Amino acid sequence: MLLDEPRLPQDFVSAARAAGMRPDPDAPDLALFHSRRPAAAAGLLTRNHFPGAPILLARERLAAGHLRTVVVNARFSNVATGPGGLQDAREMAELAARETGVSPEEVLVGSTGIIGRRLPMDRIRRGIQGMGEALASDVWPAARAILTTDTHPKVVSARVDGAILTAVGKGAGMVSPNLATMLVYLFTDAAVPAPDLDRMLRSAAARSFQVLSIDTDTSTSDMVVALANGAAGDVSGDSFQAALDAVCLRMAELVARDGEGATKLLRVQVSGAVDRGEGGRIARSVADSPLVKTMAYGADPNVGRLLMAVGKCVSCRVVPERVRITLQGVEGIRNGVPVDFPEARVRELLGGDPVDVRIDLGVGSSEGMALGCDLTEGYVEENAAYASS
Amino acid sequence: MLLDEPRLPQDFVSAARAAGMRPDPDAPDLALFHSRRPAAAAGLLTRNHFPGAPILLARERLAAGHLRTVVVNARFSNVATGPGGLQDAREMAELAARETGVSPEEVLVGSTGIIGRRLPMDRIRRGIQGMGEALASDVWPAARAILTTDTHPKVVSARVDGAILTAVGKGAGMVSPNLATMLVYLFTDAAVPAPDLDRMLRSAAARSFQVLSIDTDTSTSDMVVALANGAAGDVSGDSFQAALDAVCLRMAELVARDGEGATKLLRVQVSGAVDRGEGGRIARSVADSPLVKTMAYGADPNVGRLLMAVGKCVSCRVVPERVRITLQGVEGIRNGVPVDFPEARVRELLGGDPVDVRIDLGVGSSEGMALGCDLTEGYVEENAAYASS
Repeated sequence: MLLDEPRLPQDFVSAARAAGMRPDPDAPDLALFHSRRPAAAAGLLTRNHFPGAPILLARERLAAGHLRTVVVNARFSNVATGPGGLQDAREMAELAARETGVSPEEVLVGSTGIIGRRLPMDRIRRGIQGMGEALASDVWPAARAILTTDTHPKVVSARVDGAILTAVGKGAGMVSPNLATMLVYLFTDAAVPAPDLDRMLRSAAARSFQVLSIDTDTSTSDMVVALANGAAGDVSGDSFQAALDAVCLRMAELVARDGEGATKLLRVQVSGAVDRGEGGRIARSVADSPLVKTMAYGADPNVGRLLMAVGKCVSCRVVPERVRITLQGVEGIRNGVPVDFPEARVRELLGGDPVDVRIDLGVGSSEGMALGCDLTEGYVEENAAYASS
Repeated sequence: MLLDEPRLPQDFVSAARAAGMRPDPDAPDLALFHSRRPAAAAGLLTRNHFPGAPILLARERLAAGHLRTVVVNARFSNVATGPGGLQDAREMAELAARETGVSPEEVLVGSTGIIGRRLPMDRIRRGIQGMGEALASDVWPAARAILTTDTHPKVVSARVDGAILTAVGKGAGMVSPNLATMLVYLFTDAAVPAPDLDRMLRSAAARSFQVLSIDTDTSTSDMVVALANGAAGDVSGDSFQAALDAVCLRMAELVARDGEGATKLLRVQVSGAVDRGEGGRIARSVADSPLVKTMAYGADPNVGRLLMAVGKCVSCRVVPERVRITLQGVEGIRNGVPVDFPEARVRELLGGDPVDVRIDLGVGSSEGMALGCDLTEGYVEENAAYASS
């Protein structure tokens, strides 16, 4: 269902521009996405208590259920910037509206980067000026422009009946559930009314972005927003949900694997939990455990750390004698104690990507999952000097 | 109140021995602590669902309220070792009982190290043999023998009226609240009945070990246990509580500062919270945030990360406009937004140890605190290859 060569759906275009906000002034830091026709819109926004100005604006704009243009800047997140910051976000929307010939109410603004500094509006004004003329069907320049510490652009497309669904995203750090934990924009030429888009997006996010954590830190800025412009007509609801699920899961995996300093994806699946809440919490506990993350990095099959990470969920129902854990498909824990497993073989398997941990709790019939990444020296190096880099 | 030269109280003795379990077979890995007279005992044990065999044994032994001997081994934690592991712990108690002339029921066993491997009982038997004759008043060899990845032994003493209170501890990694998050043994020659000792220990732990986290991972093994042998007679309850508070706080700070790879202590104090629970959760959120921990390491005054870490406690009451944060005593956030602060000066202050973060939420009158440490490449390096080292 996923396309080998991701691309924008019909009547969606994008552009990128270097406004000089990055250390390399020639590196693009502004992206514009636009639908040539009206589009239904839905989205999920961060629940952090310090939402950035773009989030405040997005709350207004998503309430209306339609959007046509998305403008995004990297390098500064426009968070904790007070009333002036909100004014800057509104001005960004106005500038992008002018470039794309829509009303400012149809523009969504996204910002990612350092918290607590005002946007350099002079550069942003100069940067956005003329971007409307550069709009084209190539998605990659815009996908590159929104990155921060990501190492590669992230675009995923799926076919849905006669339509296309495409996600453009960025992640890297400060990524954890309670959403949205990154910038992800979904574009489709399928005709999907806003309420349906909202419902289906929440369902897909629950099994992708909402179970994703790079470092337990929840961003103040991030959003997952979908636009559906209907250029390709109606599609079956089931097909669209399936495509949305697949695209969101793949994008979440791309974001996890490209977490700051990460070398691999860590997938934890829990079965046999008393309810979905506990299944998810235990999966999260394992995927977030620094000792499990460093184990994945070091490819060291120290299965005791998996027990520890399950066991530290003191409020969840865990019966040690019923716990079974496999690591890369090889049983490592049975009845709550390590089994004699082929250590050299597991060490070799752990060297691969992704690392899969499956935990059966044996106390119920509910499941849970979590997506994460390994923890490496690279995470520390990147974050010990972020503001100054 | 704390003594410059920590030492064991009257009628307590200790010994250390190399049983050959460490990579360096001559490095001591067994410790014995003993009270020459009957002692009241109380303790807190880990709440992890996979408690080690020593924890199961400790539950029995602490119920009686008196102990005279503590035997501890490093390198293997005797966790997830099944009924055989519990038998090994019982045998360790018997061996230590024989050496110190007490009944096995008066012996506490502690083990720390790798999870999921049986103890090498032949070495432990040979190692414990004869330790009774080596018992002496010097505390340092035994304090060294219990270390794992700690970089230095940890002993803290305080004077209480005519008595002494001494804590011997180890920490380093897999240390987080919900207790006990390390091995800490407290010895006093004050006369304190077991129920009082239990109550006062819980109170002191609530403001020290229970607010301590190195890496959010809660060990399966650890314990904080106090023995009071009364050799120095009665002391005032208030004085004893004050000494216990001071000793536990200092020991918790020593453990935090010596967290795996850590270069400094991170102290977070929250005021103005709606209740103690939320004050503690927000303090914990900040102290555990990988982005705050790497900021402390990099000495980079990126105050936005502090806002993010407060804001991600989505279930707590936070009113952004009321939040004030100081970093090393310098105001960095006022009314929820960064203030223009002397960045070069704060950078210099952040280079020091400890790093102090104070957060006033302005929505209530409750407080909370958390103790942690910075996150460095050293943590990753140590934990990517623990089992094999």
